[in-house]
Amino acid sequence: MKVSVGVSNRHVHLNNDDYKLLFGDAPLTKRNDLTQPNTFASELTVTITGSKRSIENVRVLGPNRSYTQVEISRTDAYTLGVNPPVRNSGEVSDADVITIIGPNGELTKKAAIIAARHIHVDKKIREEKGLVGISKVSVRIPGEKSGIIDNVYLKDSDEAYFELHLDTDDANALLLKHDDELEIIK
Amino acid sequence: MKVSVGVSNRHVHLNNDDYKLLFGDAPLTKRNDLTQPNTFASELTVTITGSKRSIENVRVLGPNRSYTQVEISRTDAYTLGVNPPVRNSGEVSDADVITIIGPNGELTKKAAIIAARHIHVDKKIREEKGLVGISKVSVRIPGEKSGIIDNVYLKDSDEAYFELHLDTDDANALLLKHDDELEIIK
Repeated sequence: MKVSVGVSNRHVHLNNDDYKLLFGDAPLTKRNDLTQPNTFASELTVTITGSKRSIENVRVLGPNRSYTQVEISRTDAYTLGVNPPVRNSGEVSDADVITIIGPNGELTKKAAIIAARHIHVDKKIREEKGLVGISKVSVRIPGEKSGIIDNVYLKDSDEAYFELHLDTDDANALLLKHDDELEIIK
Repeated sequence: MKVSVGVSNRHVHLNNDDYKLLFGDAPLTKRNDLTQPNTFASELTVTITGSKRSIENVRVLGPNRSYTQVEISRTDAYTLGVNPPVRNSGEVSDADVITIIGPNGELTKKAAIIAARHIHVDKKIREEKGLVGISKVSVRIPGEKSGIIDNVYLKDSDEAYFELHLDTDDANALLLKHDDELEIIK
């Protein structure tokens, strides 16, 4: 079974309170839709800061969520001077502390994670693809830097676009690009 | 069979002519020994430039070789605006064009590669480890971003330290650090 690749660059999700602290009353205006239904890249960016350095122009995604989360690669983590765990989205209880700076204010909290490899699914996709009851799969990597990647979690939402999300470290190490088609190993 | 990891950051090897062009009569002074016998990181650095940007402070390794080669990660390649192939050391005939700038001059030539994953061996190691006649192996990756990496080439030299060399993209994507011990799959 094939799945297409979506490469996730570093980005930020905010809860409503943190959004207000960082951006005040400015609206979360859409720049472009993302592949997952009802999600978008906004016009807004923040600066993120660790113990060593900052990275500017980190995109805020929308809509806001119930938790604030900064998704970065391990390469970014070394640049910033933070040590985030590999976690599924929303698992921020032991995320690393990071500072987020917006035009209206800044905050420092446990929000930095390296996103676990994951495939977006919904009930219909699980039934169609024979993935009911499965929590994670492996994926075969072709090419000169071939291999197999494990711990690819199936991430459920009400309505999903069937896609494998990898961060820029995985994509660059494995020579993958957006829309590459890979084989799932159940 | 276990092998320890050595993480290779971006670096440059120079031939004698290119060295002279970049550094004139300055000596290739050693900063520190590397793990492979008779190799060292020098005190010298260059700037490398592609179509988009430059990266400064790229370490020159010694001793000089018969060919000039710039080993970078795919992440570096995107930063610079070059498109190097994945190649074993010395296979620079179809390397991408890159500019190297030293204190005494600069040159632009086919020198940029992404180093293929490789394990340093010599005749004695091959015999001891049962690796005689084998050109490449796979390696098992443990942990939260586990899997298997293929196309790990055995690289022969007269005298080697048995070590798996990965670039920073592989190391960061796979959460590996210098001296981690990994299992070889023959």
